Amino acid sequence: MNDNNDKTKDFAEIDLDREMRTGFPEVIFGETKTPKQSALIAEKIYKKSDLFLITRTNDETYTEVQKIIPEAEYDEVAKMIFCTKKEQKISGKISVVNAGTSDIPIAREAEITATLMGVEVESINDVGVTGIHRILSKVESIRKSDCIVVVAGMEGALPTVVAGLVDKPVIAVPTSVGFGTGEKGYSALLTMLNSCAPGISVVNIDAGFSAGYQAGLIASQ
Amino acid sequence: MNDNNDKTKDFAEIDLDREMRTGFPEVIFGETKTPKQSALIAEKIYKKSDLFLITRTNDETYTEVQKIIPEAEYDEVAKMIFCTKKEQKISGKISVVNAGTSDIPIAREAEITATLMGVEVESINDVGVTGIHRILSKVESIRKSDCIVVVAGMEGALPTVVAGLVDKPVIAVPTSVGFGTGEKGYSALLTMLNSCAPGISVVNIDAGFSAGYQAGLIASQ
Amino acid sequence: MNDNNDKTKDFAEIDLDREMRTGFPEVIFGETKTPKQSALIAEKIYKKSDLFLITRTNDETYTEVQKIIPEAEYDEVAKMIFCTKKEQKISGKISVVNAGTSDIPIAREAEITATLMGVEVESINDVGVTGIHRILSKVESIRKSDCIVVVAGMEGALPTVVAGLVDKPVIAVPTSVGFGTGEKGYSALLTMLNSCAPGISVVNIDAGFSAGYQAGLIASQ
Amino acid sequence: MNDNNDKTKDFAEIDLDREMRTGFPEVIFGETKTPKQSALIAEKIYKKSDLFLITRTNDETYTEVQKIIPEAEYDEVAKMIFCTKKEQKISGKISVVNAGTSDIPIAREAEITATLMGVEVESINDVGVTGIHRILSKVESIRKSDCIVVVAGMEGALPTVVAGLVDKPVIAVPTSVGFGTGEKGYSALLTMLNSCAPGISVVNIDAGFSAGYQAGLIASQ
Amino acid sequence: MNDNNDKTKDFAEIDLDREMRTGFPEVIFGETKTPKQSALIAEKIYKKSDLFLITRTNDETYTEVQKIIPEAEYDEVAKMIFCTKKEQKISGKISVVNAGTSDIPIAREAEITATLMGVEVESINDVGVTGIHRILSKVESIRKSDCIVVVAGMEGALPTVVAGLVDKPVIAVPTSVGFGTGEKGYSALLTMLNSCAPGISVVNIDAGFSAGYQAGLIASQ
Amino acid sequence: MNDNNDKTKDFAEIDLDREMRTGFPEVIFGETKTPKQSALIAEKIYKKSDLFLITRTNDETYTEVQKIIPEAEYDEVAKMIFCTKKEQKISGKISVVNAGTSDIPIAREAEITATLMGVEVESINDVGVTGIHRILSKVESIRKSDCIVVVAGMEGALPTVVAGLVDKPVIAVPTSVGFGTGEKGYSALLTMLNSCAPGISVVNIDAGFSAGYQAGLIASQ
Amino acid sequence: MNDNNDKTKDFAEIDLDREMRTGFPEVIFGETKTPKQSALIAEKIYKKSDLFLITRTNDETYTEVQKIIPEAEYDEVAKMIFCTKKEQKISGKISVVNAGTSDIPIAREAEITATLMGVEVESINDVGVTGIHRILSKVESIRKSDCIVVVAGMEGALPTVVAGLVDKPVIAVPTSVGFGTGEKGYSALLTMLNSCAPGISVVNIDAGFSAGYQAGLIASQ
Amino acid sequence: MNDNNDKTKDFAEIDLDREMRTGFPEVIFGETKTPKQSALIAEKIYKKSDLFLITRTNDETYTEVQKIIPEAEYDEVAKMIFCTKKEQKISGKISVVNAGTSDIPIAREAEITATLMGVEVESINDVGVTGIHRILSKVESIRKSDCIVVVAGMEGALPTVVAGLVDKPVIAVPTSVGFGTGEKGYSALLTMLNSCAPGISVVNIDAGFSAGYQAGLIASQ
Repeated sequence: MNDNNDKTKDFAEIDLDREMRTGFPEVIFGETKTPKQSALIAEKIYKKSDLFLITRTNDETYTEVQKIIPEAEYDEVAKMIFCTKKEQKISGKISVVNAGTSDIPIAREAEITATLMGVEVESINDVGVTGIHRILSKVESIRKSDCIVVVAGMEGALPTVVAGLVDKPVIAVPTSVGFGTGEKGYSALLTMLNSCAPGISVVNIDAGFSAGYQAGLIASQ
Repeated sequence: MNDNNDKTKDFAEIDLDREMRTGFPEVIFGETKTPKQSALIAEKIYKKSDLFLITRTNDETYTEVQKIIPEAEYDEVAKMIFCTKKEQKISGKISVVNAGTSDIPIAREAEITATLMGVEVESINDVGVTGIHRILSKVESIRKSDCIVVVAGMEGALPTVVAGLVDKPVIAVPTSVGFGTGEKGYSALLTMLNSCAPGISVVNIDAGFSAGYQAGLIASQ
Repeated sequence: MNDNNDKTKDFAEIDLDREMRTGFPEVIFGETKTPKQSALIAEKIYKKSDLFLITRTNDETYTEVQKIIPEAEYDEVAKMIFCTKKEQKISGKISVVNAGTSDIPIAREAEITATLMGVEVESINDVGVTGIHRILSKVESIRKSDCIVVVAGMEGALPTVVAGLVDKPVIAVPTSVGFGTGEKGYSALLTMLNSCAPGISVVNIDAGFSAGYQAGLIASQ
Repeated sequence: MNDNNDKTKDFAEIDLDREMRTGFPEVIFGETKTPKQSALIAEKIYKKSDLFLITRTNDETYTEVQKIIPEAEYDEVAKMIFCTKKEQKISGKISVVNAGTSDIPIAREAEITATLMGVEVESINDVGVTGIHRILSKVESIRKSDCIVVVAGMEGALPTVVAGLVDKPVIAVPTSVGFGTGEKGYSALLTMLNSCAPGISVVNIDAGFSAGYQAGLIASQ
Repeated sequence: MNDNNDKTKDFAEIDLDREMRTGFPEVIFGETKTPKQSALIAEKIYKKSDLFLITRTNDETYTEVQKIIPEAEYDEVAKMIFCTKKEQKISGKISVVNAGTSDIPIAREAEITATLMGVEVESINDVGVTGIHRILSKVESIRKSDCIVVVAGMEGALPTVVAGLVDKPVIAVPTSVGFGTGEKGYSALLTMLNSCAPGISVVNIDAGFSAGYQAGLIASQ
Repeated sequence: MNDNNDKTKDFAEIDLDREMRTGFPEVIFGETKTPKQSALIAEKIYKKSDLFLITRTNDETYTEVQKIIPEAEYDEVAKMIFCTKKEQKISGKISVVNAGTSDIPIAREAEITATLMGVEVESINDVGVTGIHRILSKVESIRKSDCIVVVAGMEGALPTVVAGLVDKPVIAVPTSVGFGTGEKGYSALLTMLNSCAPGISVVNIDAGFSAGYQAGLIASQ
Repeated sequence: MNDNNDKTKDFAEIDLDREMRTGFPEVIFGETKTPKQSALIAEKIYKKSDLFLITRTNDETYTEVQKIIPEAEYDEVAKMIFCTKKEQKISGKISVVNAGTSDIPIAREAEITATLMGVEVESINDVGVTGIHRILSKVESIRKSDCIVVVAGMEGALPTVVAGLVDKPVIAVPTSVGFGTGEKGYSALLTMLNSCAPGISVVNIDAGFSAGYQAGLIASQ
Repeated sequence: MNDNNDKTKDFAEIDLDREMRTGFPEVIFGETKTPKQSALIAEKIYKKSDLFLITRTNDETYTEVQKIIPEAEYDEVAKMIFCTKKEQKISGKISVVNAGTSDIPIAREAEITATLMGVEVESINDVGVTGIHRILSKVESIRKSDCIVVVAGMEGALPTVVAGLVDKPVIAVPTSVGFGTGEKGYSALLTMLNSCAPGISVVNIDAGFSAGYQAGLIASQ
């Protein structure tokens, strides 16, 4: 599989059949790779699949990627680099709801991911439970989605309230927004895992990508 | 809402509109209620919705429930009491896969829950990753489901392997099977939250009910 | 202070001036005392203050106490033994709100404590956030209290919603109701400490007594 | 609610009715917002309520805020930006007591918050329990307050001693002052939650704002 | 060293030179040994050293020990079995101070241990910091000891107050008295490790024996 | 693979090729299986491999196993049921060293496992580091083994001392012997993972079986 | 106590009687104070007691202190600023032993502190248990001290070995030297708290000052 | 042992007999030593043993080392400085397998260490379980090694799959690659300790050196 000209062969064994098995090519976790590594892996995947996505990445990597794939986009809020040449037909719709302005970067990860999977995305910002009327006023709209991603930090109560109001699966994303005992998102994670409302499943802290991907799989069935 | 003859009015404010909002009546968490409390709440919900479900319950509660609802069933493995008079038309299918014999009680929770939601369930037992051929031989069958519940204790690696092989959402359930650092299921929970495979979301430790419910919502869309 | 006939002198140095300094006599933590120790301490405090309270106690201790103070009461739900000969004039009012039937024992601790402090208590059961209309329908009543005790286990979201709706201090009590990652109440505790709603302070897990006491101090000012 | 000229509409759904419901406008958590976001939200709240408060903020945000609200103040110790045009009549009084010089920034958060709520504040610095005479000499003064905020890091023992001496509610604030096992304030938090003195409730680590707010609610009743 | 008639040779390699090196024979940790094992080890040590001590033991073990060493004593509060035939000359004195009645069993462990080392012991019970005058009234007496053992559960604040009042080393013992976040003694342990008063060192939770031993070494120099 | 007469087919998918791949048949984790399940799985494996092993099991299971495999042995200390009809030629030798009498049950797990793999086992009991001469006197013997299993609870320091004295791999086993902060074996586990001596690898707490298996693999090469 | 010219009165309530009660003036915790605050407090204490000590401090603070107290010394390894004009007569001796070169800064804290208390100090570096002969060769010397401070990071086994060899109290200091699970010193702390050797008490992680102070109290009796 | 010209005598007590006892000279932990300390210790060990190794080191230290040992090599990925003049005869072979590109630095630590011990090393990169065919295709090659080091971050499932496929000991190395609950490698560590596959032992998080050393000991027997 790795020919002699393969510039990634010394550090990667790219899973080029991933798309065939799972419907989406291998996604590149950018955080602990060098910019050069990320860019070369992206090139190889893009060549095979007409689509690539790097998560948790940075400016420096974008510079490297642009040298090879000039049409690549970089979302600075979501810290994602991506590009697609596929023709997409929209199938399914999700809502991405966040509890506060500070949760937007993680929500944006989910939105970009689902969009790349060909799913329509409705974004609803800053409707945390302290002003409960804010989420109540959005319920009718949310109920029309196939799946709802709910992003919240601090006490993380929003997914519980949403799941008690709708008949659709809720994918909850704890964020690391908070301080003191809320630092790093464990409080929000525990809240979501222990919700008294059924119909919620949870992804890792700050894992907006994972939630968007799971919602994309659900909505596009 | 609570009339004078309501025998639950001193300890419960039952959410009788839950089914209308979310498609399924309020489910009774049996573990910390007295048998009498569980039975009286079940009676009231059953009267309204023709269906009830008590989770994490016990023999003593079953005795109380049978006095009021003689047709109630008790699954001793799943520790669930339930009954339905609804006519069900099957819509959608899920697979419930477990890693080892010891995980069966939690898997069974998921299976009963999804069945009560009108979803077809395929059960696959004891296919943990130590003998990787076991899960590989089931992939074709699993891929035909709308959603896959994967139940595992100890190191909890099975959901990651499954999610790398299919294009369907995986709901992962960590179980408290294990000892030493694996006691209480935190090891399996962390494994599932940190999976390098996308397409996984996770429920609480031993929360077979939550996984079955989430899978039921996804499959029955 | 300890005379020769003092039957408690070998194991206790009772703080008989506590009531003078803080307005309420020393309260007896029953859990780790022998029944005999609890009863003898209660006798001595009761003689001085015309009021005593034993928390986290049991049947066996009640038997011992009754031998000395026949008029003592035992609340089996709250696990409290107490008695008062004081004339009480009601000053102030609190609401004690719980999220679910399983939280009642801890709520009851708070109610008994505040009542012994001469405060009027309104009890509201089973209004957790999954059925958000339940708490919304009680807001008008709750707003009339001087302080609101909110008791919740599992994900512990109720105090946040309440604090966003009223202009009164909320004392939040996490309970150990839950399982898996919710076991022992840490999830609810963290939720309450990290609430995005201001106006909440928190007591120890299952500390219904502490919350009732704090609310009593606030309401009776 | 969000008109076309609303510069916050892309990232915030401000809860403008908060003051009506809870008596104080929405407070802006500055730590994870951009300076621009904090400033625009402050502007909108200030227009509606004649008062705003940004917590856990910084110099850069102050520069942005001053462009829009030149009269805004910045307390560099408390890291708070705020401004009020309301006429205030003092109602109620609190004491804010800290255990050591290093706890002053968090104590200052509480003092500013309560002052903005129209409450008189007495500040007492550096009276930790190692020199027990220091707090004993202040008791007479403290007892005259309606509520006492006690701020302490390291072993966090001060609230327990204070609560044993007065008949007023104590709001305890653990700080992240300490090192080794005291790092991040968990030691102080646990001490305060487990106090053997009744009459204490606790807020999040370093949450001076929350304590000041709760004390303000109590004192201004 | 182990001859053929040594009944302990299959499970123990007793360190019979321990007394020569450290001044006290090997002490037997009873909790995880069978009664028979504890008794046979005690017999062998007693033969060599004229003194033995079994910690964290039980009635059943006492029955076994009495068969071999009829003069052995059992302290049911401290859960210790011991016996000495040594002539003891008292050298040095310690105070063992506890915060509450529930801490007495652990304090008693320390007292018995130090007594067996030939040290005079003063016991002071139930002088926790909520009634601060109780410990203040004992300071003169405490200051005359060579070392002070302070035993406390819950918030564990007492050692800090004591160490601020005397010029003698304080050995702090956290106990597992408490509930919720105080369960198992971690709160008290952290309090003691993070004390703002110098002159404190700490032993394991419930380790009354260790504290008594350390105090004995200090006092008998 | 599962025929109609297979009594295990409803709960197990036994990995009968395990021995071919890894050299040892599937081992049965007994703790969370019913006695009947354990016995039926044992029967099937024994038929295929002439050897079976059940770990963390109990008397009741032994009774079930004996009905089917009368020649099965039960080691009550190690809590293991096993039987072999294989002819074994000894290849390789290991030492199993424990720190104290209380660690013997876990050490015994390792000894039985390695013996079943055809490895010679030397057992050395009760040589913890408090009496350092005990282990020093065994070094010559230990150095002759191919691999050394070191079992210790409490502070778990023994593997570090051993690894500094020999040129053979040390497999360290933390045990749950201890109390307070040592409860459940996390202290010993961390000690072993952080050893300043190279040449140590670690297994799960109380995982005597895993250590014996790993040592068996190493010694029998 | 605070006159009008007191430059510390806005941030400190210095405990000037500390020396009278405990034998040593208040020590200044430098880490969370501004350089100016540390310097002004030092000045005031030095004036009263002819001795001051600032711990966990830095270059910038030293510059401030030198402006006021030109004779002050700064130990860059121990991060301590101090000065004494007292005439000291040596009374007592301690050994400060460390396990590795990386532990020297914390050991140095202990050495400086004890020296300021008038105690003779013997320093022994880099004698960790991996090369067990290193500590064995020092035993004779160590046994002559009144108290032994043992400083170790990583697995923290050294205090256990030392305490098994001597009849003097050992004060154990865990350091934050290590990585992975050893990061921040919790592994070493737990090892020391759970030592199977009696005669050890423990201070906070990296608390060289506390250990030196405790040892100084013991040795100078 | 330390003569007057020994430049390390103030901070180190080098264990020069280590090689004789354990077969490999003392290895220098670079992270918490000054560059000068590391270089001087390296010089002394190199002189005695013709081989030295510094782990977790940096550029600055390399500059210091080169001044004394110009032939020293620095691997920037593994952060190791080393040199050997020994003649090596290869004995034994290991495979070092990693799950992803981000794990290469830790894998490289293991490879360099084993190579310095005279063992042949096969490196296999990026074969994590999400694309299970990648590891399956390498099994034949891996089975020929004497020991297999498996390096993985995030969910850490790879060692379990490998151990189920081979009859050789697996040394598992968790890495700190991951985010949220996977941060710092605890998730991977727990996965590896709780593996349902026997034949795995584990080293500290990011401890590539320890794994390489253990594998080297096993392979070179």
